[in-house]
Amino acid sequence: MSRWNTVAIYGVGLIGGSIGMALQNNKAVGEVIGIGRNARRLEKARNLGAINSFVTDLSSAPVLDIVILCTPVQCLAEHCAQVFQHSVSALITDAGSTKQQFVAEVEKNLPTANFVGSHPLAGSDQSGVEHAHVDLFVDRTVVVTPTPKTNRQSVQDVSDLWTAIGARVVEMSPEDHDRALAVTSHLPHVVASALAAETSEEYLHLIASGWRDTTRIAGADVDLWKQILQENKGNVATALSLLQTRLAAFETALVKNDHESITRLLAAGKQRRDALGS
Amino acid sequence: MSRWNTVAIYGVGLIGGSIGMALQNNKAVGEVIGIGRNARRLEKARNLGAINSFVTDLSSAPVLDIVILCTPVQCLAEHCAQVFQHSVSALITDAGSTKQQFVAEVEKNLPTANFVGSHPLAGSDQSGVEHAHVDLFVDRTVVVTPTPKTNRQSVQDVSDLWTAIGARVVEMSPEDHDRALAVTSHLPHVVASALAAETSEEYLHLIASGWRDTTRIAGADVDLWKQILQENKGNVATALSLLQTRLAAFETALVKNDHESITRLLAAGKQRRDALGS
Repeated sequence: MSRWNTVAIYGVGLIGGSIGMALQNNKAVGEVIGIGRNARRLEKARNLGAINSFVTDLSSAPVLDIVILCTPVQCLAEHCAQVFQHSVSALITDAGSTKQQFVAEVEKNLPTANFVGSHPLAGSDQSGVEHAHVDLFVDRTVVVTPTPKTNRQSVQDVSDLWTAIGARVVEMSPEDHDRALAVTSHLPHVVASALAAETSEEYLHLIASGWRDTTRIAGADVDLWKQILQENKGNVATALSLLQTRLAAFETALVKNDHESITRLLAAGKQRRDALGS
Repeated sequence: MSRWNTVAIYGVGLIGGSIGMALQNNKAVGEVIGIGRNARRLEKARNLGAINSFVTDLSSAPVLDIVILCTPVQCLAEHCAQVFQHSVSALITDAGSTKQQFVAEVEKNLPTANFVGSHPLAGSDQSGVEHAHVDLFVDRTVVVTPTPKTNRQSVQDVSDLWTAIGARVVEMSPEDHDRALAVTSHLPHVVASALAAETSEEYLHLIASGWRDTTRIAGADVDLWKQILQENKGNVATALSLLQTRLAAFETALVKNDHESITRLLAAGKQRRDALGS
């Protein structure tokens, strides 16, 4: 299709690198330009085929058609403003895990045709461009988060970008996105972390595959997750409170040796898990 | 080695079937006899190579040298008594997930040379002999739970059985076992179940690999897990209470937007998870 000549990826790690590889592989774009601060890491990304070229200073980049911000959540607003200043007609999207605060901030400062928020539900407990791969987004969901103000053609264009690399696009408001992701992504992270921390070191030789699966994401980057949780703190706190109520019900059922309640609680979890498949 | 001519597996599902396959593969035994109630399922187990023959009535079995009980936790004591009545010199062990109640009950009724408790830390969210495989125990930990009364030669014999099929044997008292497994196995199960149940159906298309990993074990058999949790209810309730305290600390840190506490909590989880490896 190649409808964009110059695509920039701002922050070329696991997500950004995978987007770059996939866009080139699908011949969806002209040149893929990496933007970042660390020339050595960008060189590595280029050697891995994630980008075609790179700049460490936005002012030396050509005029950009579309830019995907893959930098940490708390830098997104600043980087968005930088890009707009450099290429006033660029369509900008991002890959941030939370949307409400960031989208509201961008809407205050940018024309509504220039920006559409995105959140690809893909990733891993690993990070770094060395773990990037071309099919990271195939059959994965990407949430695109327009507001009533967002230009519809821009929504279509950003959706086409994700579809071109194999993803399924779902549209939600930034508010609905953050409320849902608090439960489907941020809460599991807190729970995995708490469960891992609650297991004393002397017990680690006694874990089996259940513990291993349940705590896997606790190994992810602490700073990154601190930022995500803080950006969505209200929704995550609410979800945590509801989960604690359910855990307290489990505890009571066990203390009272209440067969029926234990069965009911376990069955509710199994029913929801089975609805998804393995 | 073939030090036992007649080995019986009482309950030939995923665990029992895998033990049967592994024992035959390692030429560790003479004949592997399946014991159960359902002839069709036992026939299936024989066709899959898990057992050499089977009986649906213990009285028609030959004298048994060693018996591994792989029936549900709440049937173990009864099946143990049945086996002892049939083969008074049989060495009996089991594969149950909880130990304290069961071992205490067996010690009241059987000579201490006849029984040593075991718990192989292997399995899966799947069940049934069709999922059994010959290397399920390779490099896995098996906890063997003697008490001060247990005959040491019997402990050695049972340990040799597990070592013969590739497992690492760890000795613990039944009390220590149950306290540890409450944290390393039973608590993750409750948490996975609660997390799955807390996710409303409409959000299921918004989950990513984190949710998928963290909730995987919630799909396991409800009755089996109800029994396990009830057998270890005191320890699981204690572990649940400690976990809720930690989740409440997360919630408070988020509500107060307390950077340092969020970082400290996430780092504690990552440190423990990283100590294990992937």
